[in-house]
Amino acid sequence: MSLQRKLRYAVLGIGRMGSRHAQNLAFRTPRAELVAVCDPRSTTLEWAKQSLPSSTRVFTDSAECLGQDNVDAVLIASETGLHAKLVIDSIKAEKHVLVEKPISIDLETSRKVVEETEKYPHLKVMVGFSRRFDESYREVKKLIDQGKLGKPHLIKSATNDQHDPSGFFVSYAAASGGIFIDCGIHDIDLARWFLLPSNPSIKQVRRVFALGHNVQHPELSKDNDVDNGIGIVEFENDTILVVHCNRTMKHGHDCFTEVFGTESKVIVNGNPQLNRVEIRDIHGVRTESTPTYYERFREAFVNEVNEFTDVVLDDKPLPVSCADALEAAKIATALSHSFKTSQPVYFDDAGEPLLV
Amino acid sequence: MSLQRKLRYAVLGIGRMGSRHAQNLAFRTPRAELVAVCDPRSTTLEWAKQSLPSSTRVFTDSAECLGQDNVDAVLIASETGLHAKLVIDSIKAEKHVLVEKPISIDLETSRKVVEETEKYPHLKVMVGFSRRFDESYREVKKLIDQGKLGKPHLIKSATNDQHDPSGFFVSYAAASGGIFIDCGIHDIDLARWFLLPSNPSIKQVRRVFALGHNVQHPELSKDNDVDNGIGIVEFENDTILVVHCNRTMKHGHDCFTEVFGTESKVIVNGNPQLNRVEIRDIHGVRTESTPTYYERFREAFVNEVNEFTDVVLDDKPLPVSCADALEAAKIATALSHSFKTSQPVYFDDAGEPLLV
Amino acid sequence: MSLQRKLRYAVLGIGRMGSRHAQNLAFRTPRAELVAVCDPRSTTLEWAKQSLPSSTRVFTDSAECLGQDNVDAVLIASETGLHAKLVIDSIKAEKHVLVEKPISIDLETSRKVVEETEKYPHLKVMVGFSRRFDESYREVKKLIDQGKLGKPHLIKSATNDQHDPSGFFVSYAAASGGIFIDCGIHDIDLARWFLLPSNPSIKQVRRVFALGHNVQHPELSKDNDVDNGIGIVEFENDTILVVHCNRTMKHGHDCFTEVFGTESKVIVNGNPQLNRVEIRDIHGVRTESTPTYYERFREAFVNEVNEFTDVVLDDKPLPVSCADALEAAKIATALSHSFKTSQPVYFDDAGEPLLV
Amino acid sequence: MSLQRKLRYAVLGIGRMGSRHAQNLAFRTPRAELVAVCDPRSTTLEWAKQSLPSSTRVFTDSAECLGQDNVDAVLIASETGLHAKLVIDSIKAEKHVLVEKPISIDLETSRKVVEETEKYPHLKVMVGFSRRFDESYREVKKLIDQGKLGKPHLIKSATNDQHDPSGFFVSYAAASGGIFIDCGIHDIDLARWFLLPSNPSIKQVRRVFALGHNVQHPELSKDNDVDNGIGIVEFENDTILVVHCNRTMKHGHDCFTEVFGTESKVIVNGNPQLNRVEIRDIHGVRTESTPTYYERFREAFVNEVNEFTDVVLDDKPLPVSCADALEAAKIATALSHSFKTSQPVYFDDAGEPLLV
Repeated sequence: MSLQRKLRYAVLGIGRMGSRHAQNLAFRTPRAELVAVCDPRSTTLEWAKQSLPSSTRVFTDSAECLGQDNVDAVLIASETGLHAKLVIDSIKAEKHVLVEKPISIDLETSRKVVEETEKYPHLKVMVGFSRRFDESYREVKKLIDQGKLGKPHLIKSATNDQHDPSGFFVSYAAASGGIFIDCGIHDIDLARWFLLPSNPSIKQVRRVFALGHNVQHPELSKDNDVDNGIGIVEFENDTILVVHCNRTMKHGHDCFTEVFGTESKVIVNGNPQLNRVEIRDIHGVRTESTPTYYERFREAFVNEVNEFTDVVLDDKPLPVSCADALEAAKIATALSHSFKTSQPVYFDDAGEPLLV
Repeated sequence: MSLQRKLRYAVLGIGRMGSRHAQNLAFRTPRAELVAVCDPRSTTLEWAKQSLPSSTRVFTDSAECLGQDNVDAVLIASETGLHAKLVIDSIKAEKHVLVEKPISIDLETSRKVVEETEKYPHLKVMVGFSRRFDESYREVKKLIDQGKLGKPHLIKSATNDQHDPSGFFVSYAAASGGIFIDCGIHDIDLARWFLLPSNPSIKQVRRVFALGHNVQHPELSKDNDVDNGIGIVEFENDTILVVHCNRTMKHGHDCFTEVFGTESKVIVNGNPQLNRVEIRDIHGVRTESTPTYYERFREAFVNEVNEFTDVVLDDKPLPVSCADALEAAKIATALSHSFKTSQPVYFDDAGEPLLV
Repeated sequence: MSLQRKLRYAVLGIGRMGSRHAQNLAFRTPRAELVAVCDPRSTTLEWAKQSLPSSTRVFTDSAECLGQDNVDAVLIASETGLHAKLVIDSIKAEKHVLVEKPISIDLETSRKVVEETEKYPHLKVMVGFSRRFDESYREVKKLIDQGKLGKPHLIKSATNDQHDPSGFFVSYAAASGGIFIDCGIHDIDLARWFLLPSNPSIKQVRRVFALGHNVQHPELSKDNDVDNGIGIVEFENDTILVVHCNRTMKHGHDCFTEVFGTESKVIVNGNPQLNRVEIRDIHGVRTESTPTYYERFREAFVNEVNEFTDVVLDDKPLPVSCADALEAAKIATALSHSFKTSQPVYFDDAGEPLLV
Repeated sequence: MSLQRKLRYAVLGIGRMGSRHAQNLAFRTPRAELVAVCDPRSTTLEWAKQSLPSSTRVFTDSAECLGQDNVDAVLIASETGLHAKLVIDSIKAEKHVLVEKPISIDLETSRKVVEETEKYPHLKVMVGFSRRFDESYREVKKLIDQGKLGKPHLIKSATNDQHDPSGFFVSYAAASGGIFIDCGIHDIDLARWFLLPSNPSIKQVRRVFALGHNVQHPELSKDNDVDNGIGIVEFENDTILVVHCNRTMKHGHDCFTEVFGTESKVIVNGNPQLNRVEIRDIHGVRTESTPTYYERFREAFVNEVNEFTDVVLDDKPLPVSCADALEAAKIATALSHSFKTSQPVYFDDAGEPLLV
C-alpha cells in the first residue's frame, strides 16, 4: 500500500448516508481524501462546516462540482432517482464512480448506464453493495473459496427491517421500486456472489417466483407493494435462493443469511446483537439488537470506500461491477413482476426475464 | 386426574419407533398400561422379553391381537403402507387408535380412512403429529393464544435431517411419498396449527409452489424425489408458510421454525443442542447437536401418548384429528405435484388441490 | 437389564420434593415400584389418593413403615433435620437408602451416620447429589474421562437461585446451615467428582477461603448467613474450585459451571433456558429461564432413582457414597467457618478442617 | 465538535501496539494529527515510510522528539520499563500524555509519577485502560448509571489469554510484574469503575486474597508467577471482585465479565466471537473466537485516543486518571503479595496495602 498518492473524492448528495460517507472519506480512509461535497439543500454548508475538515469545498450544483480538476472520484449518495444521471454525468466528466445501490429502480435505465460505462473502460464504476464489504460475509466467501462448505447450493436470506411507526418508510416506498428491488437486492447480490461461478453464463437464472402480504402497512397496497415479501430464485446452475424481506420487526434490523453447502452450513448474524452485552433480568436472558442497517454495516461502508480507493489507485479489478448490479436488478424486477402477476417468471437464453 | 382406571394398549409394529412407544407405555404413562405388542417378525418375542414387563403379551398376527378384550386402544407404529388398513381394522374391533403419521402417502386412501372413522364417533382416532406435543412448540401455541405475537402471519420452517451416508434413507425414500410428504408434513401441520383459526373454512389454502434439487443423493431423481425441497403455501387467510426439507446436514438433526407475528417473532430450536454443554477448544466455541429427530422429540412422544390417554379416559376433544392429518396431506401432496410439474397448484372452493 | 424383579420403595417425607420422588417411583422407573409413602401430615393421605397408584400404602409413622417386609429400599425426602435419624433407622431395618442431601448440616452427625452405614456393608446407602445424574454434567464427566479436556485444573461454578420476594427462603435459611452448606454443596461435590482422582488421598483439601455479603436479605445477618457467598477451595492435588452461591437472581435459577482443562474448557448451562423457544420483541432477543432447580434438574431426579435401583438390584458400586457426602460437608463447613472468621481454613493430614 | 484545531501527537515507541496507535492517529482521529513517531530501532523509519503519511517525522531519540514545538501530546507505547521516565520527560516538556498501562510494575515508581503529574495540573495525563473505551463496557456503565442494575455489588471477571506455544509469553513474563499486575489490572480497573462511587473514600479496599497454579508453563514458577491466578478483592463499600487471569485458553482470547446488581445481571462477551458467522459442520454448531485482545478491543483503542483528544482540546475531565491507575496498581500488587505469602492482604486507613 502506497500512501504517496491519495484519491480525491467528491460526495454527491449529503443526506443520511451521504453525510456518513463524507465523514468516512474525511476521517477513515488512509488513501482517500475528501475534497468536496455537493447537495442542493441550503443546510449542507452549515453541516459541512461543523462536521468536515475546513478544506472541504461545498457545492450546490453537481455540474460545477464535477468540473473541478482536483476531484478524481465521486461517491454518489443522492436520492435514487438521480443515481443514473449522476453516474453518466460523472463518467463524462472523467471521474471514477462509487454509486449507492440501486443504479435505478427501472431496468432499462440501469441497462443504459451499464452500456454507457462500457464506453469508459479506463474509469472504475462500482455499485455499493455494502454487504460484500462486511467482514462476516467476506468470511463466508473465504470459507466457500477454501472449499469448507463443499458445494454451496442453497441460500435462505432475510432482510428484516425494524417497524417504523412514524410512517416515513411508507411515504418513501413509492419511489423505492417495491420491496424486492429496494430491500431484496442485497440478498440477491449475495446469492449471486456465493452461488454462481466467477464467470457465469449469460443465462444465470431459470425462473423466479414471489408472493407477499401486508400486515402492518395496508396503505402499501395502493402502490402494489407489501411489507412482507417472499421470493424464490432458481439459478441455471441448479442452486436456489429463498429471500424474505420485511419491514415489520419489533426488535431491530435483523438480516439473517443461511448458506447451505454439501459439507457445512454457515449462518451470518443469527443474533443481530448491538454489542457484546447480555442482560439477565425479569425479561429473561436477552441482548439488544442493531436498530437499523447502519449499526449493522457501519464498518462495511468504510471497507467499501477503502477498497474502491485501492481499486482505482492500484488499477485492480472491481469487486462488484455495474453488470453485477444489472443482473441483480433483473432478478429483483422479475420477483416484483411475479408478485404482481402471481405467476413464475422465466428467463430467456439471453438472460432476460420474460416479463409477460 | 384419576388413576383409578388405566387405558390398556396394544402396540402394533415393534420397529424402531414402535419399540420406543411400547417402552413409553410400559414405564412412562401413569394412566396407561401396555398389555400387548404385535409384530410379524420373529425377533419381537425375544426383544419383548428383555425390554418389557413380563405381563405384556406378544402377538404376531394383528387380527388376533385386535381380538383381545383387554385391549382398549392401539398405537399403530407399523410400516407406513399398513397404517390405513390397521386403523380401519382397529376401529372395526372397537379400539381407540393413535396412529403414527402419515395415515397414508396416498391422498385417496387417507380420505377413505377419515370417512371410515367418522362412522365410529365414540372412538378416538388421533394421528401422531409429535411436534404438537413438544414443550417448545406448545409454548409458542400458548404465546399465540395469549396474543403475545400479535397476529401470526408467516412461518418459515425447516426440517433438516442429518446426512446418512449409509444409503438406508435412499432405499426407504421410494415408499415415503417423497420429501414433502415424508418430511414436510410436520412443518405443514405446525403451520396449520399456528396460522389458521380453530374452525377454519373449507377452503384453507389458496395455492402452493415447490421446487428442489439433489445435492447428495442424485439417485433420488429416479423416484422424482429430491434431498432438498422448498415449498411455499399461501393460505386462504393470507398467511404464508415457507418450508424447507433436507436430508443433507452434517451436524445433526436440526428442525428450525420461525413464527412471525405483528408484535413479535419467535424461533424454535435456533441451536439444536443435544444438552447444556458448550465446549471451547481449537474448533472454537461449540455445542453438539441432536443426531436424529428422536433425541429432539423424545419427551414429545411421551407427552403424546399421555395426552391421548387423557383424551380417551376423560372423553376430551382430540388435539389433532384425522381431518387435520388429511388437510396436511392435501397440502403436502399439492407441493409434491407442484414440484413435479414446475407449476403452482391452486385449491378449489371445496378445499381440494387441483392436481392438473 | 432384567425386568424380572422390581425394587420396592417407600418414600419417607412427602413434601415438595418427596411428592415428586414418589411420582417418579410410581411412573418413571421400570425396575422400581412404589409400595408406600410415609409422612406425619394429615394431608398426605388425600394427596396420595389423588396422585399415586391405588396400591400405594400410606403411613404416618416411619417406624411402622420401615417395619414392612415388602419395602426393600427407602427414599428419604423429609426435612433435613430428620435425615440422619431416618438413615440410621432405615439401615437398622435392613433397607437400602437413597437420602436427599445433606445427611446433616452438622459435621459430627454426618460422620456418625457414615460410621453407622459402614456396619451394614450389604446395604447400599447413597446421598442424592442430583447433578451427578444430570445428562449435561455426565457428558462433562465423560469428556474428562476420555481425556478431551486434558488435565482439568480449575472449576468456577455458581448456584444462582431466583430471588424469592415472599420471604419463605429467609425463614428456611436458619435451619439450612448457611449458604455454603445448603447451596454450595452441589458445586463442591461436582468439583470433587471432576477434579479429584477416583481414589483420592486422605488429605484432599489444602485450604479454603470464603467471604460474602447481603444485598437483598439483610435479615440473614442475624444467623451469620449471606445471600451472596464466594468460596475458594484449593485441593491438595493443586486444583482449584471457585464457587459462588446466591439467592438474588431476577431471571430464574441459573446454575453455571465452567471446567477448565489444559486442552479445552467446557461450560454447563451457559444460558439457563427453559425450553427451545427464543422471542424477538421490544425487549430484544431473549429466552425464558428455568424458574427453579426443579425445572433444571427434573430428569436428573429420575435418572438418580433409576440408577440407584440398578445399583441395588445388580449389586453395583455406588456412584456417590456417604463418604463423598461427608467430604463435601467438610469443605462446606470449612467455607462457612472461613466466612465467619474472615480467615483461611487449613486441613490437617487426616483430611480434617482445622476449625480454629 | 470543532474541527478547527487538531491535536498534534507524537507516538513514543513503535512496537506492536505503538504502530497500531500511530496508524489510528494518522487515519482514524478527526481531531488529532500524527506529526511524529519515535523509536530507537532502525527499522522504524522504513516501516513509517510504508505505513504512515509522508508528513510524519521519525525520531530515534525521545528527547529530540519531545523538544519539537509542533507536538502537543504524546502517546507512550514503549516497553513498560520506560513508561514512568517518558511520562515525566513528557510533562516536563509540556506535553499532554496518554500512556499505555501500567505506569510501572513497581508501586513506588507509579506513586512518584502521580505526584509529579500533580505539579502540572494544566496538562492532561491519562492511562490507557482500553476497556473503559469499549462500547460494550460503556453500555454496562450506562446501564449502571441509569439504575438498570439496581445496586451493583459483585463482579466476576476473567481475562483468558490464548495459549502461546511459542514461549514468547514466558520470556516476557519476568518483566511484566506477574499475572495479577500484567493481566488482572484491566479487571481491577473495571471493578473500580463499576462498583465504587465516583468520589470514593481514601480507603477503598478492605482486603484481598489470591492463589494460583501453573498448568502449562511450569517455568513461570521461577519468577514466582503462575499461568492461572485467582484473586478476590473485598472493597470497603462491601462490594466484591473475583478475578481470574489465565494464559492457557485454546480457543482464543476470551475476556468475560459478569456484573451482578440487585435488579439484573449483565454479562460482557459471553461468547468471544470473531465475527457474525456461525458454522454448522461435523464439529457441531460453532463460532470462531478473537485470537488476541487486539481483535477484541481494536475499536476501543480508537475510541480511547479520540476521547483523550477531546479531553485535551475541550478541557474536559479525564475519564481515567493516573490516580485511578495507582489505585488499581495497589490492588494488583496486593494480590501478587497475597499469592506469594498465601495470606490475605489488608489495607490501612490511608488506603495502602499492608504488604507484610
